[in-house]
Amino acid sequence: MYPTFAARLARAHTTSGSLVCVGLDPDVVRLPREFAGVPEPLLAFNRRIIDATADLAAAFKPQIAFYSALGKEAELAASIAYIRERAPHALVILDAKRNDIGNTAEAYASEAFDRYGADAVTVNPYMGEDSVRPFLARRDRGLPLYRRVAERADRYWNENKNLMLVVGATWPGEMAELRRAHPGLWFLVPGIGAQGGDLDSILAAGLDADGGGMLISSSRGIIFAGGGTYDAIRGAAAELHAGINAGRRVLARTAAPAGHA
Amino acid sequence: MYPTFAARLARAHTTSGSLVCVGLDPDVVRLPREFAGVPEPLLAFNRRIIDATADLAAAFKPQIAFYSALGKEAELAASIAYIRERAPHALVILDAKRNDIGNTAEAYASEAFDRYGADAVTVNPYMGEDSVRPFLARRDRGLPLYRRVAERADRYWNENKNLMLVVGATWPGEMAELRRAHPGLWFLVPGIGAQGGDLDSILAAGLDADGGGMLISSSRGIIFAGGGTYDAIRGAAAELHAGINAGRRVLARTAAPAGHA
Repeated sequence: MYPTFAARLARAHTTSGSLVCVGLDPDVVRLPREFAGVPEPLLAFNRRIIDATADLAAAFKPQIAFYSALGKEAELAASIAYIRERAPHALVILDAKRNDIGNTAEAYASEAFDRYGADAVTVNPYMGEDSVRPFLARRDRGLPLYRRVAERADRYWNENKNLMLVVGATWPGEMAELRRAHPGLWFLVPGIGAQGGDLDSILAAGLDADGGGMLISSSRGIIFAGGGTYDAIRGAAAELHAGINAGRRVLARTAAPAGHA
Repeated sequence: MYPTFAARLARAHTTSGSLVCVGLDPDVVRLPREFAGVPEPLLAFNRRIIDATADLAAAFKPQIAFYSALGKEAELAASIAYIRERAPHALVILDAKRNDIGNTAEAYASEAFDRYGADAVTVNPYMGEDSVRPFLARRDRGLPLYRRVAERADRYWNENKNLMLVVGATWPGEMAELRRAHPGLWFLVPGIGAQGGDLDSILAAGLDADGGGMLISSSRGIIFAGGGTYDAIRGAAAELHAGINAGRRVLARTAAPAGHA
């Protein structure tokens, strides 16, 4: 039997000791120059990123648009296979924001989980419960939902305990409200770095009582650091990793007297 | 210079004399048996559908999930090429409901328009104006938005006059309200047939003053009619086509005294 999504998530962050999620958004116009002539440039760049961050990341989050715009689905699949090889503990979260109803929603679930073998997929809940059911039916796979459908999501949609919320990093006040309302839900948090989110604020707002409860995702801030060299990528991921864990320790000390010691 | 989207749309429905949109949703579990063994089954089935309906359709609407779930992007692209060959007047509306912000939204626009060469793409507006801008910037391509963001869409997002609304067939009362509020917008209307929408009700609710203003889309009701034989597919498309045009004539007679004669 496949492990549940909750078990996969726990393994990913406890094995790595990390809450870092590395976004694999290889925007072709920003690729380091040395990948211009190679046969599979997105895959080649992703291999560098994965090599540089395998031990620092709890998750990798490829954004499918950067592959599908160019017809590079095969490079996406090969990148995921490479993550499995180099970082077997890590979650693969396919950032696709898929959304439809009925048998089309089933087909999208199949795309993410059967074709690509992702552990989780981002889903857009705009069309309501019908549009998320086929994803939630997969007990062993997760889906971060984004923005504030948290209420319905937590109360009605999460019977398989495989749902995360996508909560942007730029509004820590709203994140803190969500954390109070949903102490047990995990958040996937994009928007650190390039989009301006402040790390300490979001750690204070979003960590759960155990110092977990969120994966903090950075894409451009890591993969294009210093023009995308191995050392710069690793340095940026290590800096985020260290910043998160320093913040967790500080907050754990502060919070301890209040009851979790 | 490429024609504007409005010009393409006008050509599509005046050339064909039709408001029919044929959905190319080749759900692999429902394919006619004779396509089971062939090398490109989705393409082969689509060629039959296109052959059977080329002169009856103003538009074709492939649902991308049925291709991407199986890694059959090449069959989708080849199906679109076949539409261009057999029905050069027809619009190709890629049903993808894409949705993201920033450079990811740009990549999705590129997927629909540059990679697949679609005339229009369905877009999910859940993440707001940022998420639809890269699509609307293409003056020569259209995008049906769905559900009720009509107000913002019509007032703020449609400066290139290339926006349609997706309006389901199952709630004619709401459709009539949208038509009164937005007399000049075109609707893309799924939900006839398999999903239970009633044709006469939606024609009364949604046609504009000129007896146009909507493309009526049917997928399973056409492509799987009679098990998916050529004759059954053509028959179902012809029946929808005739039903729409009969309704248009009746409504034109009724409406004439009120001012449009």
